[in-house]
Amino acid sequence: MSALVGVIMGSKSDWSTLSHTVETLEKLGIPHEVKVVSAHRTPDLLFQYAEEADTRGIEVIIAGAGGAAHLPGMCAAKTHLPVLGVPVQSSMLSGVDSLLSIVQMPAGVPVATLAIGRAGAVNAALLAASIVGHGHPEFHEALKRFREQQTQTVLDNPDPRDA
Amino acid sequence: MSALVGVIMGSKSDWSTLSHTVETLEKLGIPHEVKVVSAHRTPDLLFQYAEEADTRGIEVIIAGAGGAAHLPGMCAAKTHLPVLGVPVQSSMLSGVDSLLSIVQMPAGVPVATLAIGRAGAVNAALLAASIVGHGHPEFHEALKRFREQQTQTVLDNPDPRDA
Amino acid sequence: MSALVGVIMGSKSDWSTLSHTVETLEKLGIPHEVKVVSAHRTPDLLFQYAEEADTRGIEVIIAGAGGAAHLPGMCAAKTHLPVLGVPVQSSMLSGVDSLLSIVQMPAGVPVATLAIGRAGAVNAALLAASIVGHGHPEFHEALKRFREQQTQTVLDNPDPRDA
Amino acid sequence: MSALVGVIMGSKSDWSTLSHTVETLEKLGIPHEVKVVSAHRTPDLLFQYAEEADTRGIEVIIAGAGGAAHLPGMCAAKTHLPVLGVPVQSSMLSGVDSLLSIVQMPAGVPVATLAIGRAGAVNAALLAASIVGHGHPEFHEALKRFREQQTQTVLDNPDPRDA
Amino acid sequence: MSALVGVIMGSKSDWSTLSHTVETLEKLGIPHEVKVVSAHRTPDLLFQYAEEADTRGIEVIIAGAGGAAHLPGMCAAKTHLPVLGVPVQSSMLSGVDSLLSIVQMPAGVPVATLAIGRAGAVNAALLAASIVGHGHPEFHEALKRFREQQTQTVLDNPDPRDA
Amino acid sequence: MSALVGVIMGSKSDWSTLSHTVETLEKLGIPHEVKVVSAHRTPDLLFQYAEEADTRGIEVIIAGAGGAAHLPGMCAAKTHLPVLGVPVQSSMLSGVDSLLSIVQMPAGVPVATLAIGRAGAVNAALLAASIVGHGHPEFHEALKRFREQQTQTVLDNPDPRDA
Amino acid sequence: MSALVGVIMGSKSDWSTLSHTVETLEKLGIPHEVKVVSAHRTPDLLFQYAEEADTRGIEVIIAGAGGAAHLPGMCAAKTHLPVLGVPVQSSMLSGVDSLLSIVQMPAGVPVATLAIGRAGAVNAALLAASIVGHGHPEFHEALKRFREQQTQTVLDNPDPRDA
Amino acid sequence: MSALVGVIMGSKSDWSTLSHTVETLEKLGIPHEVKVVSAHRTPDLLFQYAEEADTRGIEVIIAGAGGAAHLPGMCAAKTHLPVLGVPVQSSMLSGVDSLLSIVQMPAGVPVATLAIGRAGAVNAALLAASIVGHGHPEFHEALKRFREQQTQTVLDNPDPRDA
Repeated sequence: MSALVGVIMGSKSDWSTLSHTVETLEKLGIPHEVKVVSAHRTPDLLFQYAEEADTRGIEVIIAGAGGAAHLPGMCAAKTHLPVLGVPVQSSMLSGVDSLLSIVQMPAGVPVATLAIGRAGAVNAALLAASIVGHGHPEFHEALKRFREQQTQTVLDNPDPRDA
Repeated sequence: MSALVGVIMGSKSDWSTLSHTVETLEKLGIPHEVKVVSAHRTPDLLFQYAEEADTRGIEVIIAGAGGAAHLPGMCAAKTHLPVLGVPVQSSMLSGVDSLLSIVQMPAGVPVATLAIGRAGAVNAALLAASIVGHGHPEFHEALKRFREQQTQTVLDNPDPRDA
Repeated sequence: MSALVGVIMGSKSDWSTLSHTVETLEKLGIPHEVKVVSAHRTPDLLFQYAEEADTRGIEVIIAGAGGAAHLPGMCAAKTHLPVLGVPVQSSMLSGVDSLLSIVQMPAGVPVATLAIGRAGAVNAALLAASIVGHGHPEFHEALKRFREQQTQTVLDNPDPRDA
Repeated sequence: MSALVGVIMGSKSDWSTLSHTVETLEKLGIPHEVKVVSAHRTPDLLFQYAEEADTRGIEVIIAGAGGAAHLPGMCAAKTHLPVLGVPVQSSMLSGVDSLLSIVQMPAGVPVATLAIGRAGAVNAALLAASIVGHGHPEFHEALKRFREQQTQTVLDNPDPRDA
Repeated sequence: MSALVGVIMGSKSDWSTLSHTVETLEKLGIPHEVKVVSAHRTPDLLFQYAEEADTRGIEVIIAGAGGAAHLPGMCAAKTHLPVLGVPVQSSMLSGVDSLLSIVQMPAGVPVATLAIGRAGAVNAALLAASIVGHGHPEFHEALKRFREQQTQTVLDNPDPRDA
Repeated sequence: MSALVGVIMGSKSDWSTLSHTVETLEKLGIPHEVKVVSAHRTPDLLFQYAEEADTRGIEVIIAGAGGAAHLPGMCAAKTHLPVLGVPVQSSMLSGVDSLLSIVQMPAGVPVATLAIGRAGAVNAALLAASIVGHGHPEFHEALKRFREQQTQTVLDNPDPRDA
Repeated sequence: MSALVGVIMGSKSDWSTLSHTVETLEKLGIPHEVKVVSAHRTPDLLFQYAEEADTRGIEVIIAGAGGAAHLPGMCAAKTHLPVLGVPVQSSMLSGVDSLLSIVQMPAGVPVATLAIGRAGAVNAALLAASIVGHGHPEFHEALKRFREQQTQTVLDNPDPRDA
Repeated sequence: MSALVGVIMGSKSDWSTLSHTVETLEKLGIPHEVKVVSAHRTPDLLFQYAEEADTRGIEVIIAGAGGAAHLPGMCAAKTHLPVLGVPVQSSMLSGVDSLLSIVQMPAGVPVATLAIGRAGAVNAALLAASIVGHGHPEFHEALKRFREQQTQTVLDNPDPRDA
């Protein structure tokens, strides 16, 4: 099966965050592709990627970026697919700049924004699963199992003092 | 056709924001329902709503809330459907509290967060359209027309000094 | 004597903060219980815990959580007991997100919020002592001794240059 | 019955916020007293008030203040009663300064902090009810009725578009 | 003389801010052009504008935008001309989101960022004058006269109590 | 008696804040002078003012400014007199920018910073009184009377509900 | 000569910051005293210290504190001497809480606030020198020499690449 | 060729940031000079530097500073050359104070502000290249090559998992 989820990021240094997205997609068995696409250094590549994703079979795009994080928003400007944005923690401002640059999109072009850093990266994969799960019931089932398991893990370990 | 998108909000006072979601869903012709559900004042109703939405045919839940905005996150904790969160501008902190309470979800339970206020409310409807559009091509087409129109409006009015 | 104070937290990783609550309760001799209860991963457990705490003899609930910290607020939505919230320092935003998510509750459902991190964790125990102390004079006395001691420690060590 | 709850505030201008506390205490039928006590302009009065509250029969002190809001914390430094702090919205910084000055107490002297402004003022009264309700069951009952009513109001008005 | 400075903005609503840029360029006699170009609604137009500005004789681009203000940064990604960014005050976050989205550009693609709102809009024109003034001495002279005048205005009106 | 306190501000628009400084100095009977001196528009005048203040008999300089408020800090760089800085509320960022620009001086050149806006403006005058009061006992007495009066006003009006 | 400057701090842990104050006072040869005085743990000691400082010959009080830093403000409430406040960097919020708690004093009771951390600690000593220097010319001379030296150090080392 | 770009910084400790500016200027082959000039410790040197830069052949000034970063703004007050400001990350507030002190200049005196820290330091050099490139085509060419290279580097390394 060809990739259903496209995971892009503005720089190789974002991989330490976005690797959690890919790891979660793998746990769920969702076919995906991974690529560095920079809004500022490779704007034409970004436009081409966003324009063609739909016809290549991609159903959801996950875009991670830090600082003046323009990647998710500009990607959304060039596609009708759902774009999920993951703010990468910037070295200076804890990711507040990344978060605001991604989430504060103007009316007309939405980006579905997740939490800053690792939590957002994991959740982007889970949100993608709930979106593609509608047309692909096997991923809906995988998502249900994933969440049941994490519930069970908490229930099985009620004492925080246990190692 | 029964409602595909459930729009809930924590209080009647959130309607001035969420009305923009409903208005946009209407422009796109997407069947929807609207309800006040308070995470803090009616927690049992919230759990029931989130648990049953799937079986009632709802495909996307849009939840708007302000302040310690727990509605979207607790809704997401009780469903596998995509939950879109709209931070309502709080009277004290410009909606920063609402934004952080909605977006900073822990790994495991995602909320797709939109911008604070009206822009986020409009965009929640558009994001819902891109999600339900996969299984309902007529809404995908409606979304495309909506966005082409807004592009054309800018192109037709290049001079900011025109009334 | 059965537990008077219930200490819950959203994740095992919160234990490094909430352990200061438990340590302080132990110094004061107040019977307590400790449990991991996640608002997002185990919402049903949370509702059950909050609903039954009163009848099990719990008089105060202390809830610690980080990020979009919904645990204290949702607990408060399901009980009439005083709920004390401890914001755990998040890795990204220094705990500002945790603080605002806990303190900015809407009118109708209060959470008594303490400082971010260790100071708040210690103080939650002291505040619990002042609340249960009304019906249990021995804990009121313990609280008075605790505070007299800390006053005396400052008075006995006026010179900051002493080791 | 003499006052169980003491409501103090740093300045007459805080009354527009703290009046919501008093109004809620009145709805619950809890005897209370109201007084302007300024940490900075009348420090001796504050110390006297805090020291004597306990012996005068006060069980909970609610202190509202804005800006460098020292009133709740200094009050807490001079009493073993629970002190509830209400951050009043400052004209310059939306109450962020008031919130941080009240909530960020050092380990050893807790202040139970509520939300900024009206919501916090209402909730201080409800929290006081849950604290004094333990020894005075009639106020526990009043609190339960108050909360049942607010739940019912939401359930009876599910449509946000109704006037 | 054809336009030396291109003034673009993301939406007609930004005109109330950017009009101060144009007014200042007019005072300095610097030929310019004004256009609405939206990064999100008309991304292709933006890329075309940025790519062709140089060959059309434009020497400096001034771009104003609010919220997740991607216009200046994406413009800079497609030109080697100096791009000056003016953060427009957003209705929700006082322009902090606009400022961070514009200024926090990654290494490799600079945007010269000015103050939020009117002051930044005026200063973008003055900065443009100091840049184009190098090759066009008449605008350098105009800038000097403008600044001497504003200095003289302060010197001539030393008493703040004068009307 | 010639002026002991020099009150300067960056722009006429700061007068609505600094007028509270002057009004308070007048209540205390402290001789003063008032002048618009702009760090950015009249830098040479600022340097001259700061250099000569000492020899003209000025004992304290109060400098109010907004935005990138450089006036107090640059004044302090050119004098050994105590410089008191009053952050004027900026229209965009509530005065946070003014406050940080004034207070975050590097080691070596202090500015005594007061609160943002009216409160800081009043307090600059009172702080000046406590400084000049050492050498001029009549102003020390005036300060004591001023503060006794404000204490008495609170004591005489304990009920916030009185008009 | 007895102490002219009283240096107090809320806790021994503040010594790593306030030691820079003492070191600078020693460089300037200004007699001083150092003491731990906690607003929250030893409120009565604080009031006594502030009330008696004047009669013991103290001319300036420097108070350093972190978090809900009430020490400088409450000290100022009990003395007419100039009180200089040094915000100590808190472990959670970078000292923003300390800064706002110290600087945002209400009209009527000023605290002269310095920068967060080491820079503010050094500058508190320099500001104290400029205040006591008026009555004690030898400290005014010491301050002038100190500042001339630091100017010369910069002038003598213009190349940042030199070791 | 004599220096076209003057790089100044407030303190030797800023060199770890500004060295990235110099390194980038060297890659582009643009002649430059580097100097420590402190707004607060050497104000006269700063004024002299800013006043004479123009006549010494400098075309752009890059000024880096941290905290209450007055260097860029005061430099801009004394020259008509473009001044580029680089906020250096402060140890306490992540550079937010530096950023606001530099960017929030009043109308009349612009500073072209770059990102906080290393990214801003690199970009100041690139922005300088685009400004001086107009009169010196060889630097315009160097800038084009630099940016083509960084684009090619991204295109050649699309897989973030490659070492």
